[in-house]
Amino acid sequence: MKYSIGIDFGTGSGRVLIIDIKTGSIIGMSVIHFKNEKVKENLANVDVPYTFALQDPTEYIRVLKEGIPEAIKNAKIHKSQIVGLGIDATSASILLTDNQFKPLSEYQILKKEPHSYLKLWKHHGANKEAEKMLEVARNNKSRWLGNYGFNVNSEWMIPKVLELINHAPNIVKKAAHIMEVGDWLTSKLIEENVRSNCSRGFKTFWNEEEGFFYEYYKKVDSQLPKIINEKLEGRLVKIGEKAGHISTKMSTELGLPANLPIAPSIIDAHASLLGIGSTQKNELTMVMGTSTCHLMLHDEQKQIPGISGNVKDAIIPNLFAYEAGQSAVGDLFNHVANRAPKSYLDEAKNRKMHIYELLEEKASLKSPGQTGLIALDWHNGNRSILSDSKLRGVLIGETLNTKIEDIYKAYMEATAFGAKMIINNYEEWGMQIDKVFACGGIPQKNELLMQIYADILNRPIHVSASYYAPAIGAAILGSVAGREHETVVEAVHDMKQPISKTVHPISQNVKNYQKLFEIYKTIHDYYGLQSHDIMQQLDELTHQQN
Amino acid sequence: MKYSIGIDFGTGSGRVLIIDIKTGSIIGMSVIHFKNEKVKENLANVDVPYTFALQDPTEYIRVLKEGIPEAIKNAKIHKSQIVGLGIDATSASILLTDNQFKPLSEYQILKKEPHSYLKLWKHHGANKEAEKMLEVARNNKSRWLGNYGFNVNSEWMIPKVLELINHAPNIVKKAAHIMEVGDWLTSKLIEENVRSNCSRGFKTFWNEEEGFFYEYYKKVDSQLPKIINEKLEGRLVKIGEKAGHISTKMSTELGLPANLPIAPSIIDAHASLLGIGSTQKNELTMVMGTSTCHLMLHDEQKQIPGISGNVKDAIIPNLFAYEAGQSAVGDLFNHVANRAPKSYLDEAKNRKMHIYELLEEKASLKSPGQTGLIALDWHNGNRSILSDSKLRGVLIGETLNTKIEDIYKAYMEATAFGAKMIINNYEEWGMQIDKVFACGGIPQKNELLMQIYADILNRPIHVSASYYAPAIGAAILGSVAGREHETVVEAVHDMKQPISKTVHPISQNVKNYQKLFEIYKTIHDYYGLQSHDIMQQLDELTHQQN
Repeated sequence: MKYSIGIDFGTGSGRVLIIDIKTGSIIGMSVIHFKNEKVKENLANVDVPYTFALQDPTEYIRVLKEGIPEAIKNAKIHKSQIVGLGIDATSASILLTDNQFKPLSEYQILKKEPHSYLKLWKHHGANKEAEKMLEVARNNKSRWLGNYGFNVNSEWMIPKVLELINHAPNIVKKAAHIMEVGDWLTSKLIEENVRSNCSRGFKTFWNEEEGFFYEYYKKVDSQLPKIINEKLEGRLVKIGEKAGHISTKMSTELGLPANLPIAPSIIDAHASLLGIGSTQKNELTMVMGTSTCHLMLHDEQKQIPGISGNVKDAIIPNLFAYEAGQSAVGDLFNHVANRAPKSYLDEAKNRKMHIYELLEEKASLKSPGQTGLIALDWHNGNRSILSDSKLRGVLIGETLNTKIEDIYKAYMEATAFGAKMIINNYEEWGMQIDKVFACGGIPQKNELLMQIYADILNRPIHVSASYYAPAIGAAILGSVAGREHETVVEAVHDMKQPISKTVHPISQNVKNYQKLFEIYKTIHDYYGLQSHDIMQQLDELTHQQN
Repeated sequence: MKYSIGIDFGTGSGRVLIIDIKTGSIIGMSVIHFKNEKVKENLANVDVPYTFALQDPTEYIRVLKEGIPEAIKNAKIHKSQIVGLGIDATSASILLTDNQFKPLSEYQILKKEPHSYLKLWKHHGANKEAEKMLEVARNNKSRWLGNYGFNVNSEWMIPKVLELINHAPNIVKKAAHIMEVGDWLTSKLIEENVRSNCSRGFKTFWNEEEGFFYEYYKKVDSQLPKIINEKLEGRLVKIGEKAGHISTKMSTELGLPANLPIAPSIIDAHASLLGIGSTQKNELTMVMGTSTCHLMLHDEQKQIPGISGNVKDAIIPNLFAYEAGQSAVGDLFNHVANRAPKSYLDEAKNRKMHIYELLEEKASLKSPGQTGLIALDWHNGNRSILSDSKLRGVLIGETLNTKIEDIYKAYMEATAFGAKMIINNYEEWGMQIDKVFACGGIPQKNELLMQIYADILNRPIHVSASYYAPAIGAAILGSVAGREHETVVEAVHDMKQPISKTVHPISQNVKNYQKLFEIYKTIHDYYGLQSHDIMQQLDELTHQQN
């Protein structure tokens, strides 16, 4: 029996899975939750803007060091049975390292410097930089802008690099590499600076034929080309290839076989497509966790406004992968659940339920529209189709009779309406969608949510049985790197996880939600387009000195 | 020493105060909280629409029977020292009684009938009826409509009567009287059917010279004139007069002197003006409790859109009293505080604070605009200046970083912006406002709120020292009824409560709030006027059968 290791690095934890490469069975696992105390402690008296989302990168190393041995032990296998290792990670989560891949935040003199830490995808400190980049791209009528949804999102990598140049030039100077966290981990394992085409293609202005768009970057900032050339370049490795072999030092440290083949890192949401087996065009997969990614494959390159990008070979060789996203989904449900009143917590405790289950149960008692609420789920900005991280949440229709579960339901509906906007947008720009998959941490757990999505999208939703689709996807790439499978598609065929259920729309609900969607579109366009300055002004006021 | 009794019937409790008629000192008091269990129990299996706000009227009698003896005992006086009694009550809280003033809900066969109970001012079951009445008044170009803010509010008395005619004709048939709760209590005390000019003038289409506008009422509903004539008429008593003397039976039951003079009932908020001593024109008083009333006196009758009405002699003889209102103020703060997460409750408990104090403390740490939020406080509809009970609350600008105290602050600001709309409206229609008073249950307790009001209104706010201004006002009318004072103004002079503090605007806050007010006006007009159909549709969806 042969096994591949898939390691999924999410926003809050890392999961190491041992996967049977013939059946896709999970035979061992270890989940390590990131501790953020160290960053908080180090920066206790430092003025960190609330838009920042920082992490201690050594927590990722802890996932390797503790998680890998534990998962192998757990699987009761011998390490010699392991044939490959793949990594997926959040995208545009970046860090600076020295030439030994040691994070700069590990240097004593930089411990009190926010810019030396890992910046998560949801770090929103680069709004001004993203605006500048968009302005330059527009002024130059850059033909490739449409491949990035005609926008520049502050979450992407280059705005964050520019933020570093503007706010922490001395730290940039000290850095040998500025890296995606996934590339950093791969490079660390093989002790060589490699970069995957997946994140690079989506989160920087780059393509395989032309490389980085240096001419454009020069117009944005005169220092940028040099810094990109020195600190962002590296040997390119593509999805479906092998990045290299694990170093002797690392294999010893982690208890892995010598020379184990390592796959290039893939974006976590993208890995899910492999894990659930969506490798065809005309299928849309919603990867629902902290945030949601809406992924599609296609054989043509189309320019679609409001999506995050399209990249050739990023998931399946020879197909273009398209990504759109919603910035707050699980995070938003969590935000509401954290605010549940004491009586709800008591009830959940007495009935031995999780607070989410209780809220779901209560929310399901009202029919569509009965809460009288409608919301915009822009609590972490809007990634698609407005691509504006300054947008903020809206809740309309609350009365003195409104209960917390009503708000919970309104937000569930809001995320589904947001998904409908994305799907409509894909279709309006010429993509055909025949089938919708849902995977990620949430769809399995929340029945009501899947029903709401089926009703609002008015399509059956095929729910993946696995909570671990990204890690499976990473393991698939591990198996391909180890040459146990010839192609990604063949590995997917053997290792993909089953679909557990298909949720069908209920016609009366569909009718009610069609009415609500009309209202949703009105307020979506009001706050997102016509009166976009309302959110702009609110945002400015929060920053104003008093 | 001589004393007058003032009894203030609020939404949630009744307060009996014994007042020294020479100094206004409170020398005895009793507070009785209404229990609503009986209604809930009786109607446990009955389908009561959520728009209903019902009460058990016998709870008001309990205030008399328990509260009066307790307050007298508490005051350590002899009953012979009591010279008069006045009542104030919420307005357009109506009930049906037999000819002995026994509430119909006390009849065994009507106990399961929602329409037999007292309907509070905030009962919103008469929306359709109010719309019909407005349509007829507009179609007939009724010249008097402007004295009611060019609108008909479903909270007023006649829409509620029409609701009874439409939904409970058999109960209406059984009723000898349909009464304001204040009139009912006065009538019960003197055992004669009397009606005060205060509520009648504000909450029905009526004036002293012409009586009820029967011609108009006939056009609204053919049965309405007869029902009004039979069940709403009664001997008219005006503010500053005596309604009558207490009956022998009631004086014995309540431990009051025989033949005690009883004043006509006054609307609770209106009584406050007497209690704090605002008897001049060009002064605005905000009576802030569950809801807020904005009252003014003037020597002319002006037609002002969006106010609830103007009535001659309703507070001070020979002056017109103007009323505008906000439907959810204390109720809204309560709504948020009830939702405080467990950690907040724990902190408040540990620090021996009320949850309101904790929220206020945390909310005061952010400067104006810093929450990034803006809200519409329409959680119980909008009384002024839009006069539409179907409007609902709005919260814009929430992010994943938003805390409950931020929302609490946004709602405090929203009520202040709402007050600014009302003040601006008064001024635009020719009323001059030289001085702003605040009284009621809230202003004394919440320092931050008063600062927000001063900053947003950009005026000093004169805060009354007394929590009990309405009861003082009622006692003032009791003293006048007892002929211990010749006029209301003289009684006010002796008995009014002091102003405890004046809160001044802070110029930097004023500047920030001016920016926020511009946004507020935009969304106020968007949801209240331009896109008014959004709320309309949300409301319809809540009622839709599934």
